[in-house]
Amino acid sequence: MTQPIRPGEIAVKVPEAGDACLRFIGRLRTPWQRREDCPRQGDPAGPECRIEVFAPWEQALMGLEAPSQLQVLYWLDQSRRDLLVQRPKSGDRLFGTFALRSPVRPNPIGSAVVAVIGIEGAVLRVRGLDCVDGTPLLDLKPARTPGLTDHPANPSQ
Amino acid sequence: MTQPIRPGEIAVKVPEAGDACLRFIGRLRTPWQRREDCPRQGDPAGPECRIEVFAPWEQALMGLEAPSQLQVLYWLDQSRRDLLVQRPKSGDRLFGTFALRSPVRPNPIGSAVVAVIGIEGAVLRVRGLDCVDGTPLLDLKPARTPGLTDHPANPSQ
Repeated sequence: MTQPIRPGEIAVKVPEAGDACLRFIGRLRTPWQRREDCPRQGDPAGPECRIEVFAPWEQALMGLEAPSQLQVLYWLDQSRRDLLVQRPKSGDRLFGTFALRSPVRPNPIGSAVVAVIGIEGAVLRVRGLDCVDGTPLLDLKPARTPGLTDHPANPSQ
Repeated sequence: MTQPIRPGEIAVKVPEAGDACLRFIGRLRTPWQRREDCPRQGDPAGPECRIEVFAPWEQALMGLEAPSQLQVLYWLDQSRRDLLVQRPKSGDRLFGTFALRSPVRPNPIGSAVVAVIGIEGAVLRVRGLDCVDGTPLLDLKPARTPGLTDHPANPSQ
């Protein structure tokens, strides 16, 4: 489960992660079974994927429509969490973790904007994911609609 | 800490959140001391805010530059987590939680894209946040750069 580190990469001993906890609310179904098969980033014209929402959260889909754009947050559960500096596979430069969108990060939360092409009960058909099949779902939100501050996606609370 | 619910809103009894846990890696400093003072959404021309990164994570800022655009993930620690259906303050329509960007969600993770205007050690000066002063930081990533698939922000892993 823990990947080896590459030359120049810097790992630290990190404290227990116990400041807040998450519950998985669904699962992402994609064509990619292994990390190394995943595309470099999601493609809005890429293959159809599915977002399966667990009970009782399907009721929280009320008001979502297809077509639309949705921001998806998910948990990169195969990632180590202790690297400060990383060397991307594609080059020999080193970057701080926060200068990369690598899945290896202190809190391995992925974020993608997907095109919703259909909604069937608790399952959303989407394009634009880039993660491993079975990745746990954390959240769904309407993608930002710049300028539309009165849009219901951006309510005052 | 728990907000009252509004007419028509639907809460559920949710299981313990223990599927994965987070560590806070910094703190967001904004001009807003109370939820009700926060703007409806971040404004790239809004007031200057600060992102304070805790040790040892400042080394993970290596390679970040100003000006640039950064995606910020943070923990909305004042939010209840059990609403399926919500009624935004600004109207009398009901929406599923996933059809809103409300801070009330099963995993209350906020996501904003900010303009980085300066970096001084472990502190980033930014514009575009919309959350309460002191909000815990979870992650920083380069904002997506559509089309630039060879950009180091989007490495293959």
